[in-house]
Amino acid sequence: MYVILVYDATPKRGNKVLKYLRKKLNWVQNSVFEGELTESSLMEMKKDLESLINKEHDSIIYYVFDSKSYFEKVIIGVEKSNLDTII
Amino acid sequence: MYVILVYDATPKRGNKVLKYLRKKLNWVQNSVFEGELTESSLMEMKKDLESLINKEHDSIIYYVFDSKSYFEKVIIGVEKSNLDTII
Repeated sequence: MYVILVYDATPKRGNKVLKYLRKKLNWVQNSVFEGELTESSLMEMKKDLESLINKEHDSIIYYVFDSKSYFEKVIIGVEKSNLDTII
Repeated sequence: MYVILVYDATPKRGNKVLKYLRKKLNWVQNSVFEGELTESSLMEMKKDLESLINKEHDSIIYYVFDSKSYFEKVIIGVEKSNLDTII
């Protein structure tokens, strides 16, 4: 399955989410990640993320596709993920 | 067509992008929008966004689908778009 994930959390919790997601998905931009996951990894990730955020205040949204071929990705400007190592 | 869009720009230009996108798509979270667009509106939006950002520094990524039915959307925590009017 292919996942596009965006998150919005306080800096402290956002940092934990960032660190966690770097191990699971590919960083795209800002607080955006995408990548291929098995259904079981996705379920595990959901559970882990639920424990990392404050569900009253933070927000994580992810979009799940059967395949990456279902969408076209267009980039205007810089492809930030090239800068991954700098951040 | 259905579009998920994320942007990353300096506050000044980001603000212009935000104002522009609020007229075209639905605000989802942070610097994330989504919505239905015709192919011609999408082309127009792309052109407009190209003129609003600095292409050397800022980044806008959008994912285009034939239909919203191609993905499942999962929200963990708060659905920020409910707070749209507060922001």
